[in-house]
Amino acid sequence: MSTLLPDLATEILIPVCALVGIAFALVQWVLVSKVKVSTDKSHSDSKNGFAEPLIEEEDGVSEHDVVQKCADIQAAISEGATSFLFTEYQYVGVFMIAFAILIFLFLGSVEGFSTEAKACTFDVTKLCKPALASAIFSTVAFLLGAITSLISGFLGMKIATYANARTTLEARKGVGKAFIVAFRSGAVMGFLLAASGLLVLYIAINLFKLYFGDDWEGLFESITGYGLGGSSMALFGRVAGGIYTKAADVGADLVGKVERNIPEDDPRNPAVIADNVGDNVGDIAGMGSDLFGSYAESSCAALVVASISSFGINHEFTAMLYPLLISSIGILVCLLTTLFATDFFEVKAVKEIEPALKKQLIISTALMTLGVALVSWIALPYSFTIFDFGTQKEVQSWQLFLCVCVGLWAGLIIGFVTEYYTSNAYSPVQDVADSCRTGAATNVIFGLALGYKSVIIPIFAIAVSIFVSFSFAAMYGIAVAALGMLSTIATGLAIDAYGPISDNAGGIAEMAGMSHKVRERTDALDAAGNTTAAIGKGFAIGSAALVSLALFGAFVSRAAISTVDVLTPKVFIGLLVGAMLPYWFSAMTMKSVGSAALKMVEEVRRQFNTIPGIMEGTAKPDYATCVKISTDASIKEMIPPGALVMLTPLIVGTLFGVETLSGVLAGSLVSGVQIAISASNTGGAWDNAKKYIEAGVSDHARSLGPKGSDAHKAAVIGDTVGDPLKDTSGPSLNILIKLMAVESLVFAPFFAAHGGLLFKLF
Amino acid sequence: MSTLLPDLATEILIPVCALVGIAFALVQWVLVSKVKVSTDKSHSDSKNGFAEPLIEEEDGVSEHDVVQKCADIQAAISEGATSFLFTEYQYVGVFMIAFAILIFLFLGSVEGFSTEAKACTFDVTKLCKPALASAIFSTVAFLLGAITSLISGFLGMKIATYANARTTLEARKGVGKAFIVAFRSGAVMGFLLAASGLLVLYIAINLFKLYFGDDWEGLFESITGYGLGGSSMALFGRVAGGIYTKAADVGADLVGKVERNIPEDDPRNPAVIADNVGDNVGDIAGMGSDLFGSYAESSCAALVVASISSFGINHEFTAMLYPLLISSIGILVCLLTTLFATDFFEVKAVKEIEPALKKQLIISTALMTLGVALVSWIALPYSFTIFDFGTQKEVQSWQLFLCVCVGLWAGLIIGFVTEYYTSNAYSPVQDVADSCRTGAATNVIFGLALGYKSVIIPIFAIAVSIFVSFSFAAMYGIAVAALGMLSTIATGLAIDAYGPISDNAGGIAEMAGMSHKVRERTDALDAAGNTTAAIGKGFAIGSAALVSLALFGAFVSRAAISTVDVLTPKVFIGLLVGAMLPYWFSAMTMKSVGSAALKMVEEVRRQFNTIPGIMEGTAKPDYATCVKISTDASIKEMIPPGALVMLTPLIVGTLFGVETLSGVLAGSLVSGVQIAISASNTGGAWDNAKKYIEAGVSDHARSLGPKGSDAHKAAVIGDTVGDPLKDTSGPSLNILIKLMAVESLVFAPFFAAHGGLLFKLF
Repeated sequence: MSTLLPDLATEILIPVCALVGIAFALVQWVLVSKVKVSTDKSHSDSKNGFAEPLIEEEDGVSEHDVVQKCADIQAAISEGATSFLFTEYQYVGVFMIAFAILIFLFLGSVEGFSTEAKACTFDVTKLCKPALASAIFSTVAFLLGAITSLISGFLGMKIATYANARTTLEARKGVGKAFIVAFRSGAVMGFLLAASGLLVLYIAINLFKLYFGDDWEGLFESITGYGLGGSSMALFGRVAGGIYTKAADVGADLVGKVERNIPEDDPRNPAVIADNVGDNVGDIAGMGSDLFGSYAESSCAALVVASISSFGINHEFTAMLYPLLISSIGILVCLLTTLFATDFFEVKAVKEIEPALKKQLIISTALMTLGVALVSWIALPYSFTIFDFGTQKEVQSWQLFLCVCVGLWAGLIIGFVTEYYTSNAYSPVQDVADSCRTGAATNVIFGLALGYKSVIIPIFAIAVSIFVSFSFAAMYGIAVAALGMLSTIATGLAIDAYGPISDNAGGIAEMAGMSHKVRERTDALDAAGNTTAAIGKGFAIGSAALVSLALFGAFVSRAAISTVDVLTPKVFIGLLVGAMLPYWFSAMTMKSVGSAALKMVEEVRRQFNTIPGIMEGTAKPDYATCVKISTDASIKEMIPPGALVMLTPLIVGTLFGVETLSGVLAGSLVSGVQIAISASNTGGAWDNAKKYIEAGVSDHARSLGPKGSDAHKAAVIGDTVGDPLKDTSGPSLNILIKLMAVESLVFAPFFAAHGGLLFKLF
Repeated sequence: MSTLLPDLATEILIPVCALVGIAFALVQWVLVSKVKVSTDKSHSDSKNGFAEPLIEEEDGVSEHDVVQKCADIQAAISEGATSFLFTEYQYVGVFMIAFAILIFLFLGSVEGFSTEAKACTFDVTKLCKPALASAIFSTVAFLLGAITSLISGFLGMKIATYANARTTLEARKGVGKAFIVAFRSGAVMGFLLAASGLLVLYIAINLFKLYFGDDWEGLFESITGYGLGGSSMALFGRVAGGIYTKAADVGADLVGKVERNIPEDDPRNPAVIADNVGDNVGDIAGMGSDLFGSYAESSCAALVVASISSFGINHEFTAMLYPLLISSIGILVCLLTTLFATDFFEVKAVKEIEPALKKQLIISTALMTLGVALVSWIALPYSFTIFDFGTQKEVQSWQLFLCVCVGLWAGLIIGFVTEYYTSNAYSPVQDVADSCRTGAATNVIFGLALGYKSVIIPIFAIAVSIFVSFSFAAMYGIAVAALGMLSTIATGLAIDAYGPISDNAGGIAEMAGMSHKVRERTDALDAAGNTTAAIGKGFAIGSAALVSLALFGAFVSRAAISTVDVLTPKVFIGLLVGAMLPYWFSAMTMKSVGSAALKMVEEVRRQFNTIPGIMEGTAKPDYATCVKISTDASIKEMIPPGALVMLTPLIVGTLFGVETLSGVLAGSLVSGVQIAISASNTGGAWDNAKKYIEAGVSDHARSLGPKGSDAHKAAVIGDTVGDPLKDTSGPSLNILIKLMAVESLVFAPFFAAHGGLLFKLF
């Protein structure tokens, strides 16, 4: 029953793959850094480090000025983003410590802080480490996960703000060069995050093993804290970042574009820096933390189930670390895939951008299928058993291979469906654009209907994945299916981060007063980025659904419930209330964006009215105050939705017990995933319907335009409605469902021991 | 263990209460008919049957002209509504026959069309009637339910179109007189529907008993067909009516109000008659069928569970008919309640209208609590057992009393919460109105957030009702809680039907060119009607949730499943896909409204362009073509969503079996109820935010207005977006969840015997 791959090789392979990923990220970073933005260097270096004549530069704008301006703007954006993240981290730091104490107290109290060894849950003949040890190590794992998540988000933001101006400068040379800079920067973030997530988890397991020894059940139960840490930071990152970016965006647009009639990203708009900062803290740092959380959670869910399956019972180390091996091979696959975009082929024209990004998805999925086959062949015994709610289920290695693949391919399907519904190359978005003829109301109706419709195929894809993987390998199957979907996370994050970087590059080009041609190129990069952003969200939601279900299964196992029967009142009311939570949460976040935007509107109006010369461009607006307003508002507004998500499992578990909590988790999962998909696709479709009218590439599009026509105005209204849906409430819902599940899992021993107070009293 | 009320008294009491209800409806009808609209009579009668001088009549409009105009318009509306319903009934007639054959074939095939008696399901020592008998009687019950539903809807529409012009004419005398006419007409519909629903069910039970004798299990299983018939007709009525009314409304507004700048309900608008017809076929006929369906289903659910509880096993007739006795007493309570609005007190001023309607809710709930106590005391043995998924649960009569009351009072809470979120007297709608300052986008964002938020308390109210009633009396408790919520259906329908009648009255006043004062009075009636319509929808959704759960429980019992475990893949994928169905359905209905409205826009534009003199009022527009377009479009568009709902249980049950179907039912229930509540409240809030700005009764409201201001334009966009949400997709979702549940219940024996083909094959 042993594996082809010896345990020692596993011990070496995982950290090596992680280090290769980190090295590759550093190489990409060095390549990006070759584009110089600092002007003193560019002077001595002559022509900013490249030899081609800058024929497209407009008259009167000297190269030195442009580069200097870009550098200044980049510095302002980077400073704003850093200051926001530091403020955010102060608050979440307090939360982190408080929650760590809570974890320790709740889990420690399970056995009354006893230091004596206890009988293991699933093998009562053996002795396991005391609950107090679980409490301490879970707390440590939580802090590790939280810190890794914060560092991931922070590094992503740093790289993005490092790359944005470089992309702008390269856009002067051509669209291909700019694409490579943006994409390489995305890859830096993707690989750093995937590799460091893996490495920290690997190190933690090995360190914890020093204490836990052969008690793998206790070891991997404690490791789940890593997932909780990752996801709780992601929640605050996503919600605060989402509110920040949309408050700044909506606020800047409502005064700048609508009231003052100045273009988007105009440097005279006081909120313009805040708007660009928002892209980096919301879409980059938020998305990074989110996907890191999913990755950490699906690994933890798989590990905790494996620890009570034959892998754990027989102490088969290589098979036990199968989830980490999948991620390791994923890094290598993504590395190869990246070379297809940056080295093997070259993007030469605007119309090649989107296909190049789409090819990344297809290539990585195809290669990964081979990678999974290899890992399943060498790292798994031919036959083994998996824990299945009280019984052990016989599973064969090819079945586990299929579980991973079904997740991997479902991810691709979700990606393509998302593209179909949100790209303006297809009829759904064109229909929405067409409905703008009869005004904003029909645009909103058609957009909402599009979002609802776009849910159908992804849900079927997720349902099939669940059915196949569940049937083959119970909850372990679901967990590895989620891992399969996330195995190409490095590539996914690279194309995802590419979008906001291009968006920022466009903003910098406008603010630095660069030529129309440069702006057109960055716009083309940005349009492709819109679609990839939607695809990234699709992945995030799909994987979140699978991850949550796997965590839910692990929770049920750990809480020692054998069935979750819908036909008991305790479970059904949980289901009903759970299905309501995403609505409650969305209501909060949408209103938060609204009120934060209103504060921004007031400040921007105040500056336009009180700073003389601002409209003429002779006086500089006070960007910092706008950045501060967005920061303060988003920090303040992130607390109520954050509290809702973090407290619900604790309150329900403590007062109503594990059955009701199971209902809440299932309800929020099946309801939240629908709202999340429809919200992000509706928003993406409205955004691209507007872009479709603006770009005017077909007769149909031209008949609706140009900018400023009635149809275009209607499209702008749809786009604004979509902003909080697609960038704040929609993507935060992933985290809601994942986080409640992982939190329940971590606290399961406490709920099982002391939960359901209310029912015990009556 | 016998009851205070002898069986013979029960046999007499139920039909007597039903007949009293019908008689009361007829009396109200006679009172309404005293207002004369036919002009030849009004001539001889002098001054249209009333003596007060018509001091508010404007100069130049002779009384004869006005009355004649009103009569003409009323005839046109009535004719359009009748012709639509007849067309609709032709299509649903075909469907009805086809589906009846399907029921017979599916249920007959369970035992291979055998005519031999079989062992009973829950008491195998006894012989029950053959499955073929169940098939035949279920089919008959289905047809009975369907026909009763059609007649209910049709009569409601007839009464409403009879009352609208009469309300307009009475409005000349004063707001109080108009209110009484509108309210009495609503009462005619409410009582006719409640009483005839009860009477037909009672007669059916007694007739079926002639064949089934002591086989109550078979008898009441067959009776469930009544609920299926009622609800399937309701689906087509709601969907077709909803599409009709909103296509006409949106179409009329987009060309008339926006393009041609003529007021709402202007007789020059070719779609104006279609618009008014829409109110009658959508809000009146649709709502009538919907609530009749809920009533029939909750009675059936309660009866089918009772038949396998001690009531049925011991053949306790009075206790068995407890659900019908609750409805009987409900008719008497509502009768008394109605007198409070029409006879005991008088509405004298505009501001008394809303309180008068609200009092109706409170009085009927308070009186009904006493009524339920009485019935529970005399019609139930002190102690009995209720079937609870395989076991018999000990229940006492006071517990059943509490089950009914918890439903009754939860209904009141839902009503008040709905009022709070949709009436412009409170801050939520005022906030939405205020957000119009910054444009349509913020209005839409705030409106959506309001709808999401409004879900919270109703869901908690429903959850508490479920928990209490489930804990006391299992699924029977849920069913009687639903009945409790629906026990005051006559009053609920009366105040619900009052709304569209007032709306129509306003339309007729405008079209007949009546004075500003009359129009102001009908507007005040209408504004109160908007809120009551939202409350009515709240009731419909709340009761639908309870009814569906009760039906779901009955289905599970009948299909002989003992648990519905979320942790099995079959159930979980059902849950996930079920939660997606409301989105799919909403996408269909919303797009249907959009495309039907576009057809209407084209026709109205064509008439304005090709009929000379139409804008000057010298030529009459071709109303009939617009009516035909709305009719044809809504009939065509009702088929796909109808098919989705009707086919899903059949396909899932046949291919995937009862476990997956259970998941689908639970998923669609917990997800659909949220969307339904949020959609109808969002729509109601937008409508009233617009009315708040138009009415301008406070300083705040005046600062946003007047009509035509930017804020008002933004409010109009919100209102138009809300139209399909609140009148088409939202209310149809009640029926989706109920209908899938009752259909599953009826077909349960077939699924249990032959279902799950796909899993059997692999």
